[in-house]
Amino acid sequence: MPRNPRYDILFEPVRVGPVTAPNRFYQTPHATGMGYLRPESGAKLRGIKAEGGWGVVCTEYCSIHPSSDDSPFGFLTLWDEDDVRSLMPTVEAIHDHGSLAGVELWHGGSHANNRLTREPVLAPSARPALIPQPGSARAMDKADIKAFRAWHRDAALRARRAGFDIVYCYAGHDYLPFQFLSPRLNLRGDEYGGSLANRVRLLRELIEDTHEAVGDRCAVAVRLSVDELHGPRGITSQGEGREILAMLAELPDLWDVNVSGSLGNDSRSARFSDEGFQEEHVAFVKALTSKPVVSVGRFTSPDSMVSQVRRGIQDFIGAARPSIADPFLPRKIDEGREDEIRECIGCNICRSANNEAVPLRCTQNPTIGEEWRRGWHPERIETTAGGPSRVLVVGSGPAGLECALTLGRRGHRVMLAEAERRLGGRINRESTLPGLASWARVRDYRLTMIGKLPAIELFPESPLAAEDVLGLEAEHVVLATGSRWRRDGIGSLGEEAADLGTGQILTPDDIFAGAEVGGPVLIYDDEHYAMGGALAETFRRQGHEVRLATPAAMLSSWTVMTDEQFFIHRRLLELGVEPLLGQRLAGAAEGVAELACTYTGRIRRHDFGTLVLVTGRMAEDGLYRELADRAGQWAAAGLRSVTRIGDCLAPSSIADAVYAGHRWAREFDRPPAEIVPRRERPLPA
Amino acid sequence: MPRNPRYDILFEPVRVGPVTAPNRFYQTPHATGMGYLRPESGAKLRGIKAEGGWGVVCTEYCSIHPSSDDSPFGFLTLWDEDDVRSLMPTVEAIHDHGSLAGVELWHGGSHANNRLTREPVLAPSARPALIPQPGSARAMDKADIKAFRAWHRDAALRARRAGFDIVYCYAGHDYLPFQFLSPRLNLRGDEYGGSLANRVRLLRELIEDTHEAVGDRCAVAVRLSVDELHGPRGITSQGEGREILAMLAELPDLWDVNVSGSLGNDSRSARFSDEGFQEEHVAFVKALTSKPVVSVGRFTSPDSMVSQVRRGIQDFIGAARPSIADPFLPRKIDEGREDEIRECIGCNICRSANNEAVPLRCTQNPTIGEEWRRGWHPERIETTAGGPSRVLVVGSGPAGLECALTLGRRGHRVMLAEAERRLGGRINRESTLPGLASWARVRDYRLTMIGKLPAIELFPESPLAAEDVLGLEAEHVVLATGSRWRRDGIGSLGEEAADLGTGQILTPDDIFAGAEVGGPVLIYDDEHYAMGGALAETFRRQGHEVRLATPAAMLSSWTVMTDEQFFIHRRLLELGVEPLLGQRLAGAAEGVAELACTYTGRIRRHDFGTLVLVTGRMAEDGLYRELADRAGQWAAAGLRSVTRIGDCLAPSSIADAVYAGHRWAREFDRPPAEIVPRRERPLPA
Repeated sequence: MPRNPRYDILFEPVRVGPVTAPNRFYQTPHATGMGYLRPESGAKLRGIKAEGGWGVVCTEYCSIHPSSDDSPFGFLTLWDEDDVRSLMPTVEAIHDHGSLAGVELWHGGSHANNRLTREPVLAPSARPALIPQPGSARAMDKADIKAFRAWHRDAALRARRAGFDIVYCYAGHDYLPFQFLSPRLNLRGDEYGGSLANRVRLLRELIEDTHEAVGDRCAVAVRLSVDELHGPRGITSQGEGREILAMLAELPDLWDVNVSGSLGNDSRSARFSDEGFQEEHVAFVKALTSKPVVSVGRFTSPDSMVSQVRRGIQDFIGAARPSIADPFLPRKIDEGREDEIRECIGCNICRSANNEAVPLRCTQNPTIGEEWRRGWHPERIETTAGGPSRVLVVGSGPAGLECALTLGRRGHRVMLAEAERRLGGRINRESTLPGLASWARVRDYRLTMIGKLPAIELFPESPLAAEDVLGLEAEHVVLATGSRWRRDGIGSLGEEAADLGTGQILTPDDIFAGAEVGGPVLIYDDEHYAMGGALAETFRRQGHEVRLATPAAMLSSWTVMTDEQFFIHRRLLELGVEPLLGQRLAGAAEGVAELACTYTGRIRRHDFGTLVLVTGRMAEDGLYRELADRAGQWAAAGLRSVTRIGDCLAPSSIADAVYAGHRWAREFDRPPAEIVPRRERPLPA
Repeated sequence: MPRNPRYDILFEPVRVGPVTAPNRFYQTPHATGMGYLRPESGAKLRGIKAEGGWGVVCTEYCSIHPSSDDSPFGFLTLWDEDDVRSLMPTVEAIHDHGSLAGVELWHGGSHANNRLTREPVLAPSARPALIPQPGSARAMDKADIKAFRAWHRDAALRARRAGFDIVYCYAGHDYLPFQFLSPRLNLRGDEYGGSLANRVRLLRELIEDTHEAVGDRCAVAVRLSVDELHGPRGITSQGEGREILAMLAELPDLWDVNVSGSLGNDSRSARFSDEGFQEEHVAFVKALTSKPVVSVGRFTSPDSMVSQVRRGIQDFIGAARPSIADPFLPRKIDEGREDEIRECIGCNICRSANNEAVPLRCTQNPTIGEEWRRGWHPERIETTAGGPSRVLVVGSGPAGLECALTLGRRGHRVMLAEAERRLGGRINRESTLPGLASWARVRDYRLTMIGKLPAIELFPESPLAAEDVLGLEAEHVVLATGSRWRRDGIGSLGEEAADLGTGQILTPDDIFAGAEVGGPVLIYDDEHYAMGGALAETFRRQGHEVRLATPAAMLSSWTVMTDEQFFIHRRLLELGVEPLLGQRLAGAAEGVAELACTYTGRIRRHDFGTLVLVTGRMAEDGLYRELADRAGQWAAAGLRSVTRIGDCLAPSSIADAVYAGHRWAREFDRPPAEIVPRRERPLPA
């Protein structure tokens, strides 16, 4: 299809210093969890972004010197010539598609603990590590500042040798150059501290140094946090953030601006931000500089993108998460296929991968992180070699939908059966929780795409028994029948079943099914992800008295990984939910729950009107068991395999369900020897 | 010196199945944080253990299959032939010194989250992940158990191909085979669950399979947790632990027994256990089997070791941490140099490295983890090439002592000056805290060794001013003058100074100096390591009312990394210390402290008699600054360099101070180009 002319503006080239971006789609630097230990994986991932139409594709953070080491997290390095060699495939993969390659030179200062290199940590002023550990950063003296500038310059030269087109000076996210800007972290008395002009000095010098070193061939970008969201005691877009911009306005070739700080402000989940949520803080920038400006805002709507440009908010459409969820987003707009965009749902599972120090994953895009090791491409897929199979997929939650869609794309004939009237499975329920409406995109994208593939037949309101399945003439049956919440109190930290008697003791399934909730409500969360906190918010907003008990030390503790824990805990406290931390559910009956201190075992009793158990889920695998019992009848029915995928096998995140569905559809008809994923690893000589 | 005949028994060979260990020193499997991503580093480290006299040297945990992946932590793999190749250098390095090489085959079950491989997690019964994450393990069916056995067998065969002599079946530390044993985690109704005989079935099969596969050439060891310390609801050494042992008594070639479970029971820090602390739980084993038995107990005393053997507790002296602190412990005993043993202090910094997913480090042994990348050997060191230098080391804390000792070993002439009467610096103070007495070994070992090196002159009670230093004719001055605790309230999580007025507001330095403490005591801990909790314990034991406030969610939160947090928190609660969690110190004056909720900022006021600030430390670098101001006089005084090391540069752990002292002494006279550490990394083709 031809491009909608309304979006032509997004495809205009943009000059950035000595180079020109082919369009306005700008994949800002973002973590992949790959770093210097997985260079081929990183190269393949970035190359596919370029192939998908991102006119600029940047790396993740790239350390300039061993004095900034973020081990065990996945960061790049430009410390030596091996690093140059290691990054060349990334540059080449991006250039192969005519895009510009950007590198985010990075020094973490007291926000990186040098766990691998064991170098003393540097900072503008002596202070304890910003990420708690038993160590402090030392204050840089003049010789250190000089050395730092030389390291940055050397790294820029290496970046140029590797072929990069855009080289960053990175003064955001609480890292070293930002630490110099911050009046809280920079307490120096010399010409690098005190007045704003002094605090800006280092960043100004870095920009000048970089221009001088590589400006002939590379654009110099500055990534700046213009607002820390710390209020008047921090850098704000009304105050010093604006002043910094004004002071340095024409110095770099490009401004990449955001709101950051240590709490993941610029990658807030959908639960705590809307598309374009940074606009109020970054809108001022364009008025102060003639240089191109980029920012992010989880943009997935081409109309919002156009609006950003037309209204003069930014010149590029910056994207990290949307480019992960759909590496081909620009190309889909270019080809008039906007309806095929796989929109980021803002769940921040991508952030969790980096925070867990493992390669990137995504709820919407199961191929991310698998480009090199499994050879998966987000848009291209091998059609079936041996002719189409007839596959029955039972269950239309995330695993079933993705499996059916991927099978359909490969040319198989698919029957997708769903017991309920509405397709979507758990998505239909969970997207009704406060802040999680965008999770429905997991369902909607797949239903849209399935709608385009006539080889996929849909059967809603079709609960199936084993006998029905055997009558459907399927060669393969995929069971994606989901899961149900546990009723026994067994959770992640509580290994044993709780002693549960009578009384109003519910699970989230009961709540979704409309069970009556009477206060006071006691929620017991031993799952630690979204559900416990989201239900607490729901009940509190309904006016109930709510206590949220958990054996963990924080509410929704695993959401530390999605950068959401602070925001969730704060919201629940502000709503008046009472946290009961470090408490394991020992038993409950007759409206009284016994909670045991996880340290001492001491029991405390709490009255409840309703107790809700959020401790884990059990596979809904009854149909599988029925079929397994009739294995003797399979051959006669033409059935060759029955497989459980997703929650029906091992209940997990939506991301894992989508991944499981995708993987089965890719692999079920290939010999096992072919599907061993590659690993990047050093081998002894 | 000849060996003391009292210790001859430790050097008897011990037959283990088809192989024979040359002595009784057995380095049990322990993590290094290196794993399959750092094979050369691992090989070098293990080889040095063998060189140091450990008759058996084992690897860390080694996954048998991608369905058990502990990323991002440093685990080994035996999934394929590349792994065989990758482990060969380790085996060869161990064999080079006549020792036996053991490999700990491992499958984590629901205690590993497969973050890299994304395979569904396996377990005896369906349950939420034992390490919280949004996912559950699926119950293994018969086909899975069969596959698991085949994977284990294949891995054993690969281990034999790599050359290993001892192959483990690993049923400890909450991993898969132990999960089958556990009545809490194994809720199966088939022949692999229910009765103990059924729960033991899988382990029995694994042992038999392994014998059959590799028993001709390799010994089959079983690592078993004989007590979980869960009381009567778990496996206990009085109950099922003993029964399991009796049932399988003669089946393996060796028993490696411990108390484990998920809380680091068998590697408890010195704060919570003494040498030989497992004895009461493992002493029964020898009576039930004729096979050799090994266990650990942080043994560093050769007399205790002899006693273990003579009293029939074990046949080998198992060691993990003591072999890290002193890889040459056996050889030192063999050579009559027991006084030179660098004894493990039980601080568990080694555990923190693994828990932080980075390579091993040790407070006592700065060379551990540096064998390959920096070429450091724990016992051998290059003597100075250019002739001895005259070096003044100022300060005799851990950094100064290690620096002086290492310089002396290299043949330099050293003056070690200490302002106080007693050498030791911070060690003298911190080792008086409850449970930390063994930290004094950091001082005592170095003083012993320094005593043997006449080229090191000691000058206690010698506070030095710049003028004194310039008069000492030193070519190099190393300042190891330590640190002092901050008084401004700036900590790791609290970025800004607290608003502090008058009142009894102290730091740990004041306490050590004898300041009067009046209750109620409020300790504010924004450092998160040992000090805050240890002072709380001290004051509480003195009878004060004590509150321990911290912006973290747990008391002494960083000690999660040293496997101590649970024990510290529990002890403080049991003593009656009141935790104030998630509270940042906003200000204090006139006996009232204002604490702000870290989430909402809401202020709560607390009366105090004494407020103790434990937030971080400042370098005690006054002498450095004086000397820097007189840089013009250095040349005339013959002074070529002045360097700060350890806390005087960047206050940190004792481990980091020792490391800094060692590193400077190794590197100060070498050209910088020579001292770039190597990195293990895959490079693109």
